[in-house]
Amino acid sequence: MFGFRTIVLYSDFGPASRYAGMMKGVIRCIAPEAFIIDGAHDIPKYDIISGAFILGSAWRYFPDGTIHLIVVDPGVGSARRSIIACVDSHFFVAPDNGLLSLPLIHKKCGPIFELKNPEYRLKTVSDTFYGRDVFASAAAYLSCGINPEKFGEKIINPLKLDIFRTEKDGNVVKGRVIMSDSFGNIITNISSDDISKVNPLRMSVTLKGKTIEGLSRCYSDVAEGKMLALIGSSGFLEVSCCKGNAATQLKSKTGDSIKVKVK
Amino acid sequence: MFGFRTIVLYSDFGPASRYAGMMKGVIRCIAPEAFIIDGAHDIPKYDIISGAFILGSAWRYFPDGTIHLIVVDPGVGSARRSIIACVDSHFFVAPDNGLLSLPLIHKKCGPIFELKNPEYRLKTVSDTFYGRDVFASAAAYLSCGINPEKFGEKIINPLKLDIFRTEKDGNVVKGRVIMSDSFGNIITNISSDDISKVNPLRMSVTLKGKTIEGLSRCYSDVAEGKMLALIGSSGFLEVSCCKGNAATQLKSKTGDSIKVKVK
Amino acid sequence: MFGFRTIVLYSDFGPASRYAGMMKGVIRCIAPEAFIIDGAHDIPKYDIISGAFILGSAWRYFPDGTIHLIVVDPGVGSARRSIIACVDSHFFVAPDNGLLSLPLIHKKCGPIFELKNPEYRLKTVSDTFYGRDVFASAAAYLSCGINPEKFGEKIINPLKLDIFRTEKDGNVVKGRVIMSDSFGNIITNISSDDISKVNPLRMSVTLKGKTIEGLSRCYSDVAEGKMLALIGSSGFLEVSCCKGNAATQLKSKTGDSIKVKVK
Repeated sequence: MFGFRTIVLYSDFGPASRYAGMMKGVIRCIAPEAFIIDGAHDIPKYDIISGAFILGSAWRYFPDGTIHLIVVDPGVGSARRSIIACVDSHFFVAPDNGLLSLPLIHKKCGPIFELKNPEYRLKTVSDTFYGRDVFASAAAYLSCGINPEKFGEKIINPLKLDIFRTEKDGNVVKGRVIMSDSFGNIITNISSDDISKVNPLRMSVTLKGKTIEGLSRCYSDVAEGKMLALIGSSGFLEVSCCKGNAATQLKSKTGDSIKVKVK
Repeated sequence: MFGFRTIVLYSDFGPASRYAGMMKGVIRCIAPEAFIIDGAHDIPKYDIISGAFILGSAWRYFPDGTIHLIVVDPGVGSARRSIIACVDSHFFVAPDNGLLSLPLIHKKCGPIFELKNPEYRLKTVSDTFYGRDVFASAAAYLSCGINPEKFGEKIINPLKLDIFRTEKDGNVVKGRVIMSDSFGNIITNISSDDISKVNPLRMSVTLKGKTIEGLSRCYSDVAEGKMLALIGSSGFLEVSCCKGNAATQLKSKTGDSIKVKVK
Repeated sequence: MFGFRTIVLYSDFGPASRYAGMMKGVIRCIAPEAFIIDGAHDIPKYDIISGAFILGSAWRYFPDGTIHLIVVDPGVGSARRSIIACVDSHFFVAPDNGLLSLPLIHKKCGPIFELKNPEYRLKTVSDTFYGRDVFASAAAYLSCGINPEKFGEKIINPLKLDIFRTEKDGNVVKGRVIMSDSFGNIITNISSDDISKVNPLRMSVTLKGKTIEGLSRCYSDVAEGKMLALIGSSGFLEVSCCKGNAATQLKSKTGDSIKVKVK
């Protein structure tokens, strides 16, 4: 049963790179029956915030028992730890640099272990490619039924990013831009819960000096080329442009502040 | 048997995006034994014509019983319908916006059904991501053996694009540019059948003011950097540049007119 | 057993293209139980040197019995041969244009055969897409247990590229740039063996007029934005920039000369 587990790969390697290819080779050697899926490889280079969001928005769509392996790892080979976590019947393998922030704040988060046991790494470990030599190997052994506690000691203070928190100030919700996708949709940290009590017709969204009145339901609610705000498919507020690219037009970037105001 | 069916995904999400990743997660939850293949995710954003051509040129290379799921869906969440079709032992799941034009004109096209039955959608449907919540779910249930007629009512007037039709005018065949690929090959709607009776040495191809004499057999028939015309691997006339990029050089775009003339 | 073999695809088609999609369709028709992996599809267009290096650095990470299919094929349809090779329990299917240079210099290289038998091609072969009609078909039949010698006659002089050879001149090792990856890491043909006896602290690396003192162990050994030299994850000397892009900054390209000097 365990051998058939799903292993999902996320990285900033760029699409269809040899780096993801080699990780799959390592998994296939150790766990020939694992089902390997590309979760996302278009995470912007070195961008841990986008990586954390992408993983956080995707993992629940996979079956229980899935192993999520994410590599955005500018500190590879340095003192940063490598970890394995179990959250609500899903497993996560990653560098301890904030990538697991969203699953780790989940109330069903179990114990977290450091990946240190050399038995579950490749014999030679490159200081520049833990993705292949440590993480892919660990994910593969995990899919074969090796218990997480066999990989190393329990740790209690994994790194969690702060950027996913929003603020309320009277009739204003203040948030931040997390990332933009390939359509140019600007995704924020303001969740549908943050504005669930707001009348969609009476709210306005301000980002980079641009104010959008009202909340749309889908992209084609407005004319081609017009900006709109809506709750995106991951449950967060997005600023988009119908058949256009909002991120390019507004020159938005990670961390830009955004405000939702109720009239 | 049905559980092992092939599901092929095509989209304009860009390569290795989390959107395709989540669709695979949904399929894996519902149909763990389906064999998932990326058909193409580099369809230009919102470009239904390119999407229709890419699907139309690819589907016959997959085995009978394959389910083709294609999402280029600027109208997602609006009144446009979602459909399922069966053509010559292949299944197709898509928005009803012209993407299925090429299979649907096939003489072995069977009945077409609307995807409406909430039983075969995810419990929560985002108005911006039918690909995940409606289409991936439907494809997965279909691969489990659910009959197409269970998904909704029969429809009789699916949208078909007009752009794939060519014209004959004396010794001239008039066509249009459909798309260009990542090599810069300019692909047209003029099929090998349209010019099957023409002597390759006595024909000329004119596009964007550039005239190419004769029909080549392969790219290296001409010197590096030279333009040529040939019948591409999908059976349509292409204008290419040996080791170069014809689309960039000629600034061609979808819909540009092209003429084949016999001397 | 053979039907479950791994087939790894490498190409310059660009990520998630319909061309790779169709190759997978062909394989799935002939060998439904083959396990298909994307090895790399981001090889620069027409770049046989990068393709040869990418394959050469990846193949050993896959299990014995794996079939590696690589297509970078500007000469498709011309007189260049199509070949199949067996090296140290791995199979290779490719055009005979130098792509297999690195496995072929291996001492455990077995006999090489030309792919000519029409029985193992698609019925119609396009002169512009051997990847689909000849190579994918051959790889699929090979995975079903067809013996390599059934595909065609033995050949003895496959094309091997010269660029992977380095020179020693006193206390200087002279090499060349092979490629740069999507992070902008500049990868050279100087292997860890070439400089294994050198004291990392007493060496300097010169490329495009820039000299880097000492050999680092990992990217974060230097400050953000600083250049460094290290042995990359494939065992070759790389010039990199911490959280930056060395290839863009140095405007390096394939074939540029690089020198390692010992003080």
